Amino acid sequence: MKINYLHTMVRVKDLEKSKAFYELLGLEETRRIDNEGGRFSLVFMSPPGQENAAVEMTYNWDGDEGLPSDSRHFGHLAYAVENIYEMCQHLMDNGVTINRPPRDGHMAFVRSPDNVSVELLQMGEALPRQEPWASMENTGHW
Amino acid sequence: MKINYLHTMVRVKDLEKSKAFYELLGLEETRRIDNEGGRFSLVFMSPPGQENAAVEMTYNWDGDEGLPSDSRHFGHLAYAVENIYEMCQHLMDNGVTINRPPRDGHMAFVRSPDNVSVELLQMGEALPRQEPWASMENTGHW
Repeated sequence: MKINYLHTMVRVKDLEKSKAFYELLGLEETRRIDNEGGRFSLVFMSPPGQENAAVEMTYNWDGDEGLPSDSRHFGHLAYAVENIYEMCQHLMDNGVTINRPPRDGHMAFVRSPDNVSVELLQMGEALPRQEPWASMENTGHW
Repeated sequence: MKINYLHTMVRVKDLEKSKAFYELLGLEETRRIDNEGGRFSLVFMSPPGQENAAVEMTYNWDGDEGLPSDSRHFGHLAYAVENIYEMCQHLMDNGVTINRPPRDGHMAFVRSPDNVSVELLQMGEALPRQEPWASMENTGHW
């Protein structure tokens, strides 16, 4: 099954300061989502010509409890997969918990053996909703 | 200045378990370093055809104090740059601390405003040693 690397997500306390830092390195903003309802922004920045190797900054407008004072805070690795249902079945068959099942045919989260959060996204359009995924509950957090 | 994304580093407690997990996703080992002296292994795994978008697993043979029981542990983002001295000068000029100066003309570490560790590597061969870098002390950790 085809799989593509997409981004590494990091949480940021001050979006403008972080943007300025990655701009100093030469990264460029390629995509930005400001979510009024969820009160968060996602800003994707990549080296020129490497749009699919982004750092995704997650900025929560009302502050972020997940940010320690020293490093080692990390969001997730993200990969695009050819068929998200087949990938999740394959992982389950091998003992991996699907923390956030792909109920929407679009997105799932699992954890590595060290609890590194890994996001899986369906390549292209979301797949049609399908059981057992559509009614599968979340397990733990991710 | 040209900059290329290289890898995201994560620390792992059990190298074989983590390798098996990323193999389930379809990633392949592209490079491995077993360092007898330092008693650590580095294993790079990428989606096929994306050798420059790797997850780097750092495995310390004698255990790793840096591994919490729950997620959010994270090593660093890594970028290759055209001229590591010019990049570090540019960062310093803009108020960024060079935590690990490029004394060897090859590698430096800085931190984002949220203390995310960022590794900078000289593209290709290391540059000749050069002041003020060659004799610059480390600042803090990274």
